[in-house]
Amino acid sequence: MVDVAGRQPVLEALRSGQEINKLLVAKGPRQGALQQIVSLAKQRGVVIQEVDRSVLDRLSPSINHQGVIAQLAEVRYWELADLVARPSGDPWPPFLVLLDGVQDPHNLGAIIRSAEALGAHGVVIPKRRGALVTEAVMKASAGAANHLPICRVTNLAATIDTLKQEGYWVFGADAAGEPCFEQDLTGPIALVVGSEGFGLSRLVREKCDFLSSIPMRGQVNSLNASVAASLLMLEVVRQRSLRQP
Amino acid sequence: MVDVAGRQPVLEALRSGQEINKLLVAKGPRQGALQQIVSLAKQRGVVIQEVDRSVLDRLSPSINHQGVIAQLAEVRYWELADLVARPSGDPWPPFLVLLDGVQDPHNLGAIIRSAEALGAHGVVIPKRRGALVTEAVMKASAGAANHLPICRVTNLAATIDTLKQEGYWVFGADAAGEPCFEQDLTGPIALVVGSEGFGLSRLVREKCDFLSSIPMRGQVNSLNASVAASLLMLEVVRQRSLRQP
Repeated sequence: MVDVAGRQPVLEALRSGQEINKLLVAKGPRQGALQQIVSLAKQRGVVIQEVDRSVLDRLSPSINHQGVIAQLAEVRYWELADLVARPSGDPWPPFLVLLDGVQDPHNLGAIIRSAEALGAHGVVIPKRRGALVTEAVMKASAGAANHLPICRVTNLAATIDTLKQEGYWVFGADAAGEPCFEQDLTGPIALVVGSEGFGLSRLVREKCDFLSSIPMRGQVNSLNASVAASLLMLEVVRQRSLRQP
Repeated sequence: MVDVAGRQPVLEALRSGQEINKLLVAKGPRQGALQQIVSLAKQRGVVIQEVDRSVLDRLSPSINHQGVIAQLAEVRYWELADLVARPSGDPWPPFLVLLDGVQDPHNLGAIIRSAEALGAHGVVIPKRRGALVTEAVMKASAGAANHLPICRVTNLAATIDTLKQEGYWVFGADAAGEPCFEQDLTGPIALVVGSEGFGLSRLVREKCDFLSSIPMRGQVNSLNASVAASLLMLEVVRQRSLRQP
């Protein structure tokens, strides 16, 4: 991740309009420039997190952080409305991948890589829960994060409602779902993948039109999150390939 | 990885018959116990690697390594013959996954996890090239490495010959192959996956009965190695599920 440390540099980053994943501010009373930084960040809708000063010391061992660090995003995120409105220039129906709190940067990167390679039109991640696109994510995506639109949304459940209104079928990856081979995934579709270890959150799960599972035959009945997401994407690709002229 | 450092502990590990991934010995003249350790390791067929003393210092910062470290395996590896001869107790035809030099422990772990979950009967890895089953691999496999037979072979090309004689069809993951959806993967089968970045080695590639690809639609035309392996495994599962009564 690109960190900007120190009051003046952070203030400039905020004023420049650069995408900022998160503002880290030292716990304790704030005055002067620090107060101004936090106000500006709030105006811009940047996620602000209070942390112990030791966290900032560790993140910025050589530069004097003066109690504040801005973590810049590696990509410019898309607005959901732009992504949905955009003509994909693709004979395929729309195909989005929504991540409900994937935590591990390697998994996020691998999912973005698979989504791009398999022809999804975009990935949607929540602003506050789960990994954002950092340097590690960019690396794990093998650069695919530069080619695929990525949205960062405040409320994933609301996003699902919007997509349904736009005519998408929303299907969630869940072991309780029907086997994916038996479902029709050829229409406009949004695949929702849950977090490592916890799966889909309750509300998101309830919002899905249907749940979809990968048939398992082993004793360890779970897959790596990026693998599970990729397997369901492949099934979409396979079904759509068969339908193509 | 579980490292055993120091002459007496390493000697005991060698005598106990424990699986040892590798013996690391400091470069330079060897005498006495060190000479005895190397002879015993050679007798047992353990891979021996000469390294700078600084490497050993880094691996064993607190224990005096006396010029030698044995890296113990986390699993007891199977013999290929036992794996092939074993009745799988499964109505499915045999299904093995061969790894041609996968380097990253996370990828190896994720592949083992997928193989176990999707019902493959074993994973074969080369003894000298690529990652062996270490603690990190075990963790990334979510414990699946405890449930799935794993073989370590000296020569993967020879292994492919053996499997062909046993009636297996051997198919390699390769972008130059036919799309996997159009191939018959329902018989006794061994899937070969190449290393990250380099794919299948020339000899292994030539030994394969056929090559198989995953249809790609993006600008970054490659997938994470564990994802690619898992996608091909899923296609095997899908085709076999359709054939089941």
